[in-house]
Amino acid sequence: MSELVWIDGAIIEASRARIDPRDRGFALGDGLYETIRVRNGAPTRVAAHVVRLVRGCALLDFSPPLDPHDFEDTMRRFLQATDTAGDAALRLTLTRGPGPRGLAPPEAPKPTLVMTVAAWTRPAPVAAITAHVARRDETSPLCTIKHTNCLEAILARREAASYGADEAVLLNQQGRVAEATVANLFAVIDGTLTTPPLNEGCLPGVARDEILQRTGAAQRAITQADLARADEIFFSSALGVRSAVAMDGRRLPSRTVAESLLL
Amino acid sequence: MSELVWIDGAIIEASRARIDPRDRGFALGDGLYETIRVRNGAPTRVAAHVVRLVRGCALLDFSPPLDPHDFEDTMRRFLQATDTAGDAALRLTLTRGPGPRGLAPPEAPKPTLVMTVAAWTRPAPVAAITAHVARRDETSPLCTIKHTNCLEAILARREAASYGADEAVLLNQQGRVAEATVANLFAVIDGTLTTPPLNEGCLPGVARDEILQRTGAAQRAITQADLARADEIFFSSALGVRSAVAMDGRRLPSRTVAESLLL
Repeated sequence: MSELVWIDGAIIEASRARIDPRDRGFALGDGLYETIRVRNGAPTRVAAHVVRLVRGCALLDFSPPLDPHDFEDTMRRFLQATDTAGDAALRLTLTRGPGPRGLAPPEAPKPTLVMTVAAWTRPAPVAAITAHVARRDETSPLCTIKHTNCLEAILARREAASYGADEAVLLNQQGRVAEATVANLFAVIDGTLTTPPLNEGCLPGVARDEILQRTGAAQRAITQADLARADEIFFSSALGVRSAVAMDGRRLPSRTVAESLLL
Repeated sequence: MSELVWIDGAIIEASRARIDPRDRGFALGDGLYETIRVRNGAPTRVAAHVVRLVRGCALLDFSPPLDPHDFEDTMRRFLQATDTAGDAALRLTLTRGPGPRGLAPPEAPKPTLVMTVAAWTRPAPVAAITAHVARRDETSPLCTIKHTNCLEAILARREAASYGADEAVLLNQQGRVAEATVANLFAVIDGTLTTPPLNEGCLPGVARDEILQRTGAAQRAITQADLARADEIFFSSALGVRSAVAMDGRRLPSRTVAESLLL
């Protein structure tokens, strides 16, 4: 897989690809992204990713530079150009584009659309902790879109690393479970596969939706006490399902549901 | 003033300046910034800005690419190169630099440092509203650093615009006043100049510190009821003091303190 980048319609070597330093994605985090699982060289669940991206544009009040129906073809052309034949992780980043100094958006933004592709490997089981450094604000509309303001997640991941763990569970402002750093959380509690409902502050994950449909999992608030007695915990993202082998130092007895999903 | 950009030691035309699309500042909002008032071609309050920037690096766990003592010289050389003789706004953006796919930072980050300069004009009085779309999380360490995750502020500014206003006051999770979108808030309440203490979720502003020293303003929690009966409200940033002419539709009777400050 060659190191190529798709930027605003051109496919170029990553080392020559150029983002304007005045891009609001760089200067102000004014952007969105999607990470898409590629199988046999083809992007998967494209419609769900594009719907979420377009909803993000609506909330942030700018128009995507492509017609929503053209994203899939564009992704496929990029994957062909990069000789991506097997599994891969395709990332799409969409920002409001360059702007003058300050917070106020330009009147006629020219959004920046970037795609990159990376190797995919099946997510390995991880030890996880409950993050205390940062919380999700379940009252914020930003919880509903996949944006590039990732510092909370980065701090939580750093807190996990300080305990020798690789993933962190983020609580919401009520102290209940929202999600993991870049994944949704599922837990088997009293024999029932459970995930927090969207109003607990989790991202509406594409894989989360698929698991809900396939398993009929319950959408119920999950307290820290629930998590402390769960038989199984796993994290879902578009790139797959990742089991927790331990949560806050407690070994988890089961990985049965996660292993049956094979997303 | 020519359109030049300082990137990682080189001064080049903005239209040719290049950020790597894999830069974590662009991809994940993994960055910090400072906006510095330039007077007579010289940057002001540099030490305070650099201290805050270095504290941000410590929280995010990466090292700045310059020795803290070298920032001022670097700024001065850039301002000379751009023929900045009078007033200006200098912006410094510092990100963790490029990284591979995913949230985990590279083991040896190569941070990206960018400077741009823009015209400065004295901040004009504005109508302001209380934002309801987003709140500050006063329990987050992210409140203490000036980072590039600005979507809350961008949404709040958009909410203000929908009411014909130009600035928004952000509340904290307790529903008390934290700050404005890119400025601290001061209010004259019962005859006392007041600003929220840092633990209410406001940024430790460089101009805020200076105003506290010069005026002896009280640091006290400000409720929405307090704001609704304030005689004067103004917003402070490194670029100056901006009076509120109206707050949530109520005309404010005074601008006396703000006009006496002339920051």
